[in-house]
Amino acid sequence: MTEKAVIAIVGAGLVGSGWALVFARAGYEVRIFDPDAAVRERVLPWATASAKELAEAGLLADDETVMQRLSVCATLAEAVEDAGYIQESVFETVEVKSNACRAIDAAMRSDAIVGSSSSGIPASRFTEACRNRGRFLIAHPVNPPHLVPVVELVPAPWTDEDAMAETQRLMTEVGQVPVSLTREIDGFILNRLQGALLNEAWALYDEGYASLEDIDATVAHGLGLRWSFMGPFETIDLNAPGGITDYAARLGGMYHDMAAKRVPGPWPQETIRKAGEERRQVLPQSDLATRRAWRDAALTRLAAFKKSSGLGP
Amino acid sequence: MTEKAVIAIVGAGLVGSGWALVFARAGYEVRIFDPDAAVRERVLPWATASAKELAEAGLLADDETVMQRLSVCATLAEAVEDAGYIQESVFETVEVKSNACRAIDAAMRSDAIVGSSSSGIPASRFTEACRNRGRFLIAHPVNPPHLVPVVELVPAPWTDEDAMAETQRLMTEVGQVPVSLTREIDGFILNRLQGALLNEAWALYDEGYASLEDIDATVAHGLGLRWSFMGPFETIDLNAPGGITDYAARLGGMYHDMAAKRVPGPWPQETIRKAGEERRQVLPQSDLATRRAWRDAALTRLAAFKKSSGLGP
Repeated sequence: MTEKAVIAIVGAGLVGSGWALVFARAGYEVRIFDPDAAVRERVLPWATASAKELAEAGLLADDETVMQRLSVCATLAEAVEDAGYIQESVFETVEVKSNACRAIDAAMRSDAIVGSSSSGIPASRFTEACRNRGRFLIAHPVNPPHLVPVVELVPAPWTDEDAMAETQRLMTEVGQVPVSLTREIDGFILNRLQGALLNEAWALYDEGYASLEDIDATVAHGLGLRWSFMGPFETIDLNAPGGITDYAARLGGMYHDMAAKRVPGPWPQETIRKAGEERRQVLPQSDLATRRAWRDAALTRLAAFKKSSGLGP
Repeated sequence: MTEKAVIAIVGAGLVGSGWALVFARAGYEVRIFDPDAAVRERVLPWATASAKELAEAGLLADDETVMQRLSVCATLAEAVEDAGYIQESVFETVEVKSNACRAIDAAMRSDAIVGSSSSGIPASRFTEACRNRGRFLIAHPVNPPHLVPVVELVPAPWTDEDAMAETQRLMTEVGQVPVSLTREIDGFILNRLQGALLNEAWALYDEGYASLEDIDATVAHGLGLRWSFMGPFETIDLNAPGGITDYAARLGGMYHDMAAKRVPGPWPQETIRKAGEERRQVLPQSDLATRRAWRDAALTRLAAFKKSSGLGP
């Protein structure tokens, strides 16, 4: 990739818009396309407000300069044709992603790289027909990507090795934390770990062991604290006198027994309905957007805290 | 419980010492006993240093006054006899806990409450023989309890309802975040959720999808961030336009498929050995204690950050 290549964003909802900020704040020129004109109109006002919030939190030196690097394009070809890296963040179904990737494929430089924001569907299911399929891979962020740095890189069986290596370098350079999978698996790492915990949380709630609120508090004021700056392996490595092997010897049997007694079933419909009612009593539907803004403000402060404490990028 | 009852700490290792600080900083007189004289000698110097660190982080107004509330007793009876609440934190085996509980039972006031720091063994397995068994319950903290506020309250089948209610009130008053289980289950909530995630993490590592380091980074720089101030249910409630029921409708099937394809096996011995070698290359055995101190310093700053941001107690 040439120095400070042009970056294209295809699909400019919340995820795509966050990606635009990630690349622009690192000094890249970013060209944005979304097929929906209403979405295209929302991008720059949203980015202006978000960049200002980052600057206020000390996470961005000069938000106005950053904004000058963003432009919205009327066609996909215009956004993509000169780009060295293209981030695709369209709606997550195999059909929508297939169509978007074929359109990108037709307009892209053959040496460009296309990272898909897919949160769980592997790239092999929607890039096989692409002429440049060796240049496509998964680059899955957490929402919103400009506040949560991790990005999962997952190759399809036909992804070029250098496309993986180059994307890893780019992501590190722009301040994200890339993690690399060796091969595809549904849900990748992040959502498989999330799913495992959620499956157990639903089961405990379904069986009446504790309230939704208390299960949430167990994580928010307990289990989640160390995990916000250390991973699960380092956590257990520090939690037994002799480290991780000592921990496994002491507690591995208990954890296996718990898993062996759990027969995984689908999340129970009636329990989901009840959980929905409880959540809507705590937080009415009309307040969801306000609470999401609260979450993002908290993530902004957490990112600034981690940065200033040397606990994050 | 009378106002500002005396608190007794039985077992004064890292967990018990942390508990002593929790109660003393909230204004309680705390009497500490440990059967090991070497442990008894370490408690006050450790508490002095830790209270100073809390004061420096703005989490404690006056560490010297707090220290005046702590005393170490030469016998269990001396620590326990006038106490309104007793926190038991001895080594976690059924035998050691049974013996400690019988000794406490013989010396305690019949209206006192005994909370056990057991991290996974339910109280019914070691309190049945106690005369005052209705006053015993689980009060499981995260280590160290003075930096991580959650505490799981779990009744045995014979625990008095008012002992649960009173402990909940006490824990809230001293600044912890109590969560209540309706009945016993191995591992309670916290370690069942941790175990579910760990089982999946070991499987992904064992099957070679990603490195130990990248699995840790996926949590530390991604999945763990929202969980450090919101629980898993609120996280998914905010992650779909229509809230938690909408999220379950979109992604419940994917999460169930992942679980259905996993056959839970024991953590593989050879993989544990390999993980241990990798961790010891990143962090030599001789540096484990230093890294634990680093973790606790980070948790102290995180607690101060959450408090000042209104994200935690």
